[in-house]
Amino acid sequence: RVPGLWTRVVPARAGSTVPGVVGEEAEVTVSAGSNGKDEKAVASYWGVPPEKITKDDGTEWKWHCFRPWETYRADLSIDLEKHHAPTTFLDKVAFWTVKAMRLPTDIFFQRRYGCRAMMLETVAAVPGMVGGMLLHCKSLRRFEQSGGWIKALLEEAENERMHLMTFMEVAQPKWYERALVITVQGVFFNAYFLMYLISPKLAHRVVGYLEEEAIHSYTEFLKELDNGNIKNVPAPAIALDYWRLPKGSTLRDVVMVVRADEAHHRDVNHFASDIHYQGRELRETPAPLDYH
Amino acid sequence: RVPGLWTRVVPARAGSTVPGVVGEEAEVTVSAGSNGKDEKAVASYWGVPPEKITKDDGTEWKWHCFRPWETYRADLSIDLEKHHAPTTFLDKVAFWTVKAMRLPTDIFFQRRYGCRAMMLETVAAVPGMVGGMLLHCKSLRRFEQSGGWIKALLEEAENERMHLMTFMEVAQPKWYERALVITVQGVFFNAYFLMYLISPKLAHRVVGYLEEEAIHSYTEFLKELDNGNIKNVPAPAIALDYWRLPKGSTLRDVVMVVRADEAHHRDVNHFASDIHYQGRELRETPAPLDYH
Ligand SMILES: [Fe+2]
Ligand SMILES: [Fe+2]
Ligand SMILES: [Fe+2]
Ligand SMILES: [Fe+2]
Repeated sequence: RVPGLWTRVVPARAGSTVPGVVGEEAEVTVSAGSNGKDEKAVASYWGVPPEKITKDDGTEWKWHCFRPWETYRADLSIDLEKHHAPTTFLDKVAFWTVKAMRLPTDIFFQRRYGCRAMMLETVAAVPGMVGGMLLHCKSLRRFEQSGGWIKALLEEAENERMHLMTFMEVAQPKWYERALVITVQGVFFNAYFLMYLISPKLAHRVVGYLEEEAIHSYTEFLKELDNGNIKNVPAPAIALDYWRLPKGSTLRDVVMVVRADEAHHRDVNHFASDIHYQGRELRETPAPLDYH
Repeated sequence: RVPGLWTRVVPARAGSTVPGVVGEEAEVTVSAGSNGKDEKAVASYWGVPPEKITKDDGTEWKWHCFRPWETYRADLSIDLEKHHAPTTFLDKVAFWTVKAMRLPTDIFFQRRYGCRAMMLETVAAVPGMVGGMLLHCKSLRRFEQSGGWIKALLEEAENERMHLMTFMEVAQPKWYERALVITVQGVFFNAYFLMYLISPKLAHRVVGYLEEEAIHSYTEFLKELDNGNIKNVPAPAIALDYWRLPKGSTLRDVVMVVRADEAHHRDVNHFASDIHYQGRELRETPAPLDYH
């Protein structure tokens, strides 16, 4: 299964962002179905052709969900052990909320770390989207800049979604797992939405602690890969391009870069919480952008 | 008033995305307040320094809300007259909903186009965010790619927010206008959210028609500038950088590029509606990215 992959790319509208060039409006956009089977044309007066992008080596860029300039090499040197010791009451609420959520998760997944990673990434991609959306609406309501935090949080959400897109290539969700994801998303989205409205300080701290747990889970995942309990299969193509991994990279390499991502999210969210703790608003401190 | 502008930039963490380089974690992040007055330090173990970016000419990049590679030259050659003739029942619902919303807007603003533009951009930035967020959650729930549509819609939302950030430099909202914006956002966000859940086909069509009206308003704005009823002040600094406008550009130039943006949004949303009309899902057709 290769989701989101199209076999044909429609011709690019040359110079679409250059003024003075008369745009050649395509009357019809032809696009192939997601699995190459249903090649039905989308006929539209509004046909807006996508860009044609090539990789460094001249071959066609085959992903529509991310572009070459969004890819990166993960910073594997990041400190994986950093921890925010909970001291205030709110910190303790955040810490024990996360610890309490971990118990049922451990029982449910046992040592199935591939499945666990895939399932948890569907949840991990929610906070960044909720936070980014709320800051976006706040920026509009208050006629004020965001200091780059909207983008930083949306980037985090997109990064987590890419983790999911990667893991679903190596683990297939069963029907009851899909049902569970739908339920959990419904509950978690609303809970986090409310939490962010009431106390962004608490919300970011909770995510900081969730990320600390994520780092731990991925370390366990690596152990299972190293002792042979989980097969170290080749890395999916999407991971090679997204993290600029060398050819021949394996699942182990993917888990390494994903774990580094989680450490970066931990930093950003604990930092965001700290800013709130110091009585400031996020927009007063420039957000870390492209911090992976 | 210069919102979201910092006078000092903390040192960048060199090579943060390069593996193998030992990251120098800053223990303390110092950042200036948004108006340079309250230079309070944010002390944080998690201090995540922002990147230091320079412009092409070597001077420091002063915006934290957008980066050089997100700027563009607007395609002024785009057809401003394109219109989707409503034929189906849903199209007519969309068309007359927008027409009905125009009447009170015209009465409220009369010929105050600067104020009108600023106020309407606070609403215009909502649909892209709601659509992007819903597609993001859907992608997570269904374990499937989005074909780039999440990003395309979020880019539209961000582009509209930049319109607001630009116009608020030339028009200051009064207290009752701020109150109105808060109320309108509360109603419109929820209405659009529900509409997108029930019928994305209708939702995108409504935005398509809203953009057609926006093009019309900006054309009226240009007329008022040309006949001297509105003063053609210099373009704000943020506009010069965002649209790569030459030095000495004026409000008229800004309205020209903003109107071109609206024409692009019109195309994208009518196109998205067409895709739904043909019984397909957005993800099956690659989204237009960087389509400005
Ligand atoms: Fe993740
Ligand atoms: Fe994470
Ligand atoms: Fe706009
Ligand atoms: Fe627009």
